Amino acid sequence: MSKSLPKRSEDYSLWYNELVKRAGLAENSSVRGCMVIKPYGYAIWEKMQRTLDDMFKRTGHQNAYFPLFVPKSLFEAEEKNAEGFAKECAVVTHYRLQNDPEKPGKLRVDPNAKLEEELIVRPTSEAIIWSTYKNWIQSYRDLPLLINQWANVVRWEMRTRLFLRTAEFLWQEGHTAHATAEEALAETRQMLEVYAQFAEEWLALPVVKGVKTENERFAGAIETYCIEGLMQDGKALQAGTSHFLGQNFAKAFDVQFANKAGSLEYVWGTSWGVSTRLMGALVMAHSDDEGLVLPPKLAPIQVVIVPIYKTGQLEELMERIRPMQMGLIERGISVKVDDRDTERPGFKFAEWELKGVPVRIAVGMRDLDAGTLEVARRDTKEKLTLPLADIVNSVDQLLQDIQQNIYRRALNFREEHTTRVESYEEFKQVLDGKGGFVVAHYDGTSETEERIKEETKATIRCLALAEPEEEGICIVTGKPSTRRAHFARAY
Amino acid sequence: MSKSLPKRSEDYSLWYNELVKRAGLAENSSVRGCMVIKPYGYAIWEKMQRTLDDMFKRTGHQNAYFPLFVPKSLFEAEEKNAEGFAKECAVVTHYRLQNDPEKPGKLRVDPNAKLEEELIVRPTSEAIIWSTYKNWIQSYRDLPLLINQWANVVRWEMRTRLFLRTAEFLWQEGHTAHATAEEALAETRQMLEVYAQFAEEWLALPVVKGVKTENERFAGAIETYCIEGLMQDGKALQAGTSHFLGQNFAKAFDVQFANKAGSLEYVWGTSWGVSTRLMGALVMAHSDDEGLVLPPKLAPIQVVIVPIYKTGQLEELMERIRPMQMGLIERGISVKVDDRDTERPGFKFAEWELKGVPVRIAVGMRDLDAGTLEVARRDTKEKLTLPLADIVNSVDQLLQDIQQNIYRRALNFREEHTTRVESYEEFKQVLDGKGGFVVAHYDGTSETEERIKEETKATIRCLALAEPEEEGICIVTGKPSTRRAHFARAY
Repeated sequence: MSKSLPKRSEDYSLWYNELVKRAGLAENSSVRGCMVIKPYGYAIWEKMQRTLDDMFKRTGHQNAYFPLFVPKSLFEAEEKNAEGFAKECAVVTHYRLQNDPEKPGKLRVDPNAKLEEELIVRPTSEAIIWSTYKNWIQSYRDLPLLINQWANVVRWEMRTRLFLRTAEFLWQEGHTAHATAEEALAETRQMLEVYAQFAEEWLALPVVKGVKTENERFAGAIETYCIEGLMQDGKALQAGTSHFLGQNFAKAFDVQFANKAGSLEYVWGTSWGVSTRLMGALVMAHSDDEGLVLPPKLAPIQVVIVPIYKTGQLEELMERIRPMQMGLIERGISVKVDDRDTERPGFKFAEWELKGVPVRIAVGMRDLDAGTLEVARRDTKEKLTLPLADIVNSVDQLLQDIQQNIYRRALNFREEHTTRVESYEEFKQVLDGKGGFVVAHYDGTSETEERIKEETKATIRCLALAEPEEEGICIVTGKPSTRRAHFARAY
Repeated sequence: MSKSLPKRSEDYSLWYNELVKRAGLAENSSVRGCMVIKPYGYAIWEKMQRTLDDMFKRTGHQNAYFPLFVPKSLFEAEEKNAEGFAKECAVVTHYRLQNDPEKPGKLRVDPNAKLEEELIVRPTSEAIIWSTYKNWIQSYRDLPLLINQWANVVRWEMRTRLFLRTAEFLWQEGHTAHATAEEALAETRQMLEVYAQFAEEWLALPVVKGVKTENERFAGAIETYCIEGLMQDGKALQAGTSHFLGQNFAKAFDVQFANKAGSLEYVWGTSWGVSTRLMGALVMAHSDDEGLVLPPKLAPIQVVIVPIYKTGQLEELMERIRPMQMGLIERGISVKVDDRDTERPGFKFAEWELKGVPVRIAVGMRDLDAGTLEVARRDTKEKLTLPLADIVNSVDQLLQDIQQNIYRRALNFREEHTTRVESYEEFKQVLDGKGGFVVAHYDGTSETEERIKEETKATIRCLALAEPEEEGICIVTGKPSTRRAHFARAY
């Protein structure tokens, strides 16, 4: 608390790392690349989980749980998927430790307890789930199968960052099976909409919906849909993906169903996921040099009340604060009264700013006597004077305003940082200047995409669904193009 | 559905396995010892989680998340804990796969991607958490630290059983840190009470609260408290444990705090957990030869409505059923209307009996015209005729009655199967006869406990808290004893 945060303008990356730690969201653990999600961070994740889970259930999905481990032979069955994840797999090879005969008090792997077949710690669960679906699906009556799982997964990463890229992370993964390609595609798109709605209405993060190019597609998918958000440093962040798997996994695991006519067909699949990465997006999209700015809908504490008092007054003041506190709680607003007598108000103000609490109310005897309260909103740092008599309604309205304002601000930022360019020159200028999304024609080949990436570090974030067909010429090769892509440097 | 379940009286173990699978709770996976928790089973687990989580939060705990992996050097720091779990650890030794040069299309562990230090897949998280607490705790002001985690853990088991003993299972683990032994002990006992309350009020499972003997204590604990339930086959099942860790982990990980006087002391710890094992307890405590009997408070579907109709009538009937369905839903009761036209009512009745839905309502036009409904309760198999006009109140009351009845029945069973014995002869007779808890004096030594275990397969489930001090003589050695222990054969 004593030291102020690094400034975004000076070192965005350092600002992010420090903020995540100091605000109590997460920290690095003694396990390389794995984080500890701290209580305050986890409380936000729980709100995300609860909201998404309700949305999944409303769209007909059920939760289930599949094993953490994937036997190697299953893992390698869908070749592209296996190839895509092979380089980042944690592998269990032994199932027992024993006393180390050379080092008293130490343990070592028991060489006699080697597994016959190695177990992969799931980097994603298509393999284990589709090998299970084989037994669950016989007939068209068993379809659609609409299942989601909340789980931890492990992808061994060399360069990690809290929330954004960690060896272990938490996520949900939906895995659905359908009788037709159309149904599976409709599911893929439906879940993209669910993610977009969640991002915009809860995270207050405007997103571009689109499809990935082949280079960026999920290993084993026919088509990957995604939502892409823009962070304050002008870099894009993929916030969720929804994959149309075609019949790839059904074929790899021999999952067939008898259709109404009685003949066998391979099942069509989808998978879709969001992860604790969303926590990183939340931080980077809205926060400022004083700390977190949390959208009220996801803030574990929506209102903090700081009593301002002279020695000996606290008890009496607390008595008078209680009705307001209760009124807010009854309205469904989460309130914290910071009645610590070990810290001064200024210290408390700074701490709750750091933690991104949307509304702060400072209350002294004189305010209560006068019937007005000083209310500070975190997003704009404005201070308002509001009548005590109507405080519950005012705060409720204010929380809604803040939610909308944060979204609008992020949307304005994105609009100001989305540039349509017509030449490679301009493309590079924008990237090196204000950054953001650069919307440009390219010839549709992987070669051009690769070349742009090598030369500028920008990747195609997606072919946006809202982008109309349009005749143009590739900014690099001059070849004809029918549609613009959204390029950006990205997390 | 076609074949009936094995009978409990003929093969209890087979009955259990078949019931768990056929009712859609869980099944074995292709990973040795790991299960798939199916949607219907997971829905029950979610209700358990939600209820317990609320109870934890009401008692001041916060959730957080710690890494899946524990570096070997941390794992071995608390020696007793390490020793206790060493034989059942899954160990990650490599972080990459590569194409197998000898088998095209296959993968193998990349020999160049061996970890410098092996990672243990957490069998429990004291080590990783206490190594983190070292950084979180400096002063008495940082205490108590009251944290819970919902997670998967892995304990390599040779003989596994769905829910009861699986290599991977889901659980919650609370880990708290306190300034004094008294506070830590109070926390340990408080969480035991929380578990007991949950078991009795939600699972409808009466439990004996007690402490473990040294032989059965958690590795690394000073004292292990537990709740023990009794299954219908007369075997006991440990349903939850709460450990007083003393300063063992604080010393192993050097977690000290400055007390008010400014001098350093080691922190006092507790840990406590319940797992998906509770699902097994739920099944074995109440279910019968027709299938599951679920306590209404944990049933994903509390009421199933089966329309009885002639061809062409369904739509009209459904219209008339809807107000009742809505009325139940508004009361907070979860209702399923089984309007499948592919199955006959008798088939549906059997299916919902198998799945343990507490209340079934069969509704035909004639019932609606007469203003009465046939309501079947799952626990007693009674059929009641209830007036349609007051159906919501009646069903609500009935669900409460069923919850109580299931509990009372299990309590009666336990009372009938709790026998105080005065001789080893009698002890063995009871164990081989009706089974259950045998409450007997023993001399308090590990040797006698071991001997009884070897000769009878019965272990001391606990020294019950409710058992008064009482002078007696050990049934085996004749030595003096001051307190009876609860013995039983156990899961």
